[in-house]
Amino acid sequence: MFYETKPFEAFELGDKATFSKTIGEGDLLLFAALSGDNYPVHVDEEYAKTTRFGGRIAHGLLTASLLSATNGMLLQKPGGISLAQTLRFLRPVYPGDTITACSEVIEIIPDKRRMRFRTSCTNQRGELVVDGEALEQKDR
Amino acid sequence: MFYETKPFEAFELGDKATFSKTIGEGDLLLFAALSGDNYPVHVDEEYAKTTRFGGRIAHGLLTASLLSATNGMLLQKPGGISLAQTLRFLRPVYPGDTITACSEVIEIIPDKRRMRFRTSCTNQRGELVVDGEALEQKDR
Amino acid sequence: MFYETKPFEAFELGDKATFSKTIGEGDLLLFAALSGDNYPVHVDEEYAKTTRFGGRIAHGLLTASLLSATNGMLLQKPGGISLAQTLRFLRPVYPGDTITACSEVIEIIPDKRRMRFRTSCTNQRGELVVDGEALEQKDR
Amino acid sequence: MFYETKPFEAFELGDKATFSKTIGEGDLLLFAALSGDNYPVHVDEEYAKTTRFGGRIAHGLLTASLLSATNGMLLQKPGGISLAQTLRFLRPVYPGDTITACSEVIEIIPDKRRMRFRTSCTNQRGELVVDGEALEQKDR
Repeated sequence: MFYETKPFEAFELGDKATFSKTIGEGDLLLFAALSGDNYPVHVDEEYAKTTRFGGRIAHGLLTASLLSATNGMLLQKPGGISLAQTLRFLRPVYPGDTITACSEVIEIIPDKRRMRFRTSCTNQRGELVVDGEALEQKDR
Repeated sequence: MFYETKPFEAFELGDKATFSKTIGEGDLLLFAALSGDNYPVHVDEEYAKTTRFGGRIAHGLLTASLLSATNGMLLQKPGGISLAQTLRFLRPVYPGDTITACSEVIEIIPDKRRMRFRTSCTNQRGELVVDGEALEQKDR
Repeated sequence: MFYETKPFEAFELGDKATFSKTIGEGDLLLFAALSGDNYPVHVDEEYAKTTRFGGRIAHGLLTASLLSATNGMLLQKPGGISLAQTLRFLRPVYPGDTITACSEVIEIIPDKRRMRFRTSCTNQRGELVVDGEALEQKDR
Repeated sequence: MFYETKPFEAFELGDKATFSKTIGEGDLLLFAALSGDNYPVHVDEEYAKTTRFGGRIAHGLLTASLLSATNGMLLQKPGGISLAQTLRFLRPVYPGDTITACSEVIEIIPDKRRMRFRTSCTNQRGELVVDGEALEQKDR
């Protein structure tokens, strides 16, 4: 329960954290459980084959969930709070794809101890699949 | 695999869909599994008690995941695609809270068959906990 | 927590709801977890190869679980209760198969606000894999 | 991969198998994932409080899934196949309830090596919550 942390004052532009994970069928199944989202392109392979995607794709917010990890890793434990997140879903993510999420400090806002992160997810071919920004606060 | 759907042309401002779900400890556990986010305020009750929240809180993107369901419900099956999502995390969500997600058509963009949804999550006391907008496309 | 619903009086013979989902290995794993059923033909690929099925097959009640979704979708939220279910397991379901569950009103019983649904699951080749009936009640 | 089994010829009326399990919130969450069933009485505690049940209840087919285990245990590994199952849902099951499933041989049908099992689930107060019959075949 004791955590060493990085205080707000120690952050610099360009600090970053990354996390890579292979998104499998099990992830789609469990995200459907959490979200209640059973949209056909995520759960029905036969239908998904007939779409422009050619097969089932991950829910956008499932891929984006990896940013929850990198935002926290970048803030370091503990005392960080997420205030806002923007997301653009740029390319489909398929079961079996390995996604690298990255959060990077792009603005430091001393008032209220806030920071802006660029948050992005790329696939195993280096293609950007999710892009956006996070607004974070560091209490300690 | 046969889906009846609501075509883009049939949508009107004010159309909406809602989904309510009680967020339990199991949801926090599985979201930590999917996202890789084990930030202490989500997984360490002893630590979380010492924060201004007074206990573990749900990951913001876990609460927001319910919007994945309501965006899909509002688009109706099939042919919907999420292009972008903005989120503001306004209040903590605790295990045991019942969250009602709501997606509502606030703009119809005939070019490229797109729509803008207001997307919000409220708790069982009617307090807004997540607010934002989604940009969606309806292929069919 | 506010639900619009379809009252019992509005139901007609032939009303139906369908849900399609690809059954993956993760589904077999989680159903084994929930049910405690680790019968070899479901969990032991090496053994399952030696049987007349030629590989692992889904638990019959896993396939049938999709009828829980379509019964609820057909009843519409809220106020529906399942009273009984009969099931015949007609063909094996393999990981990777896409199952379409269908519930259809075949009898309306005004006394006690009950209905009988035909409930069936077909695979991606249109073969009936599970067949049966459900007895449902609609309180509201 | 080597299984000792009980051949069809060794079965007698009254042979039985039981399995007890506490149904938790996590079970409801995962069953929602498998089945796609997010009916409010299973996932929305605030709504469920307003119903005659007074709180969330388990999906009937979730409780019944324990019979998949006891049917398999009674058949003994391997060579058993489920052909049919009937279920009556008699009482609600709440998160925290401990359910004992029981399968018992009530008929032996030498032709085609089949048996009929009585299949029942009782709660921790000894109340019958699910009742029905299974038709099983034992290949070996």
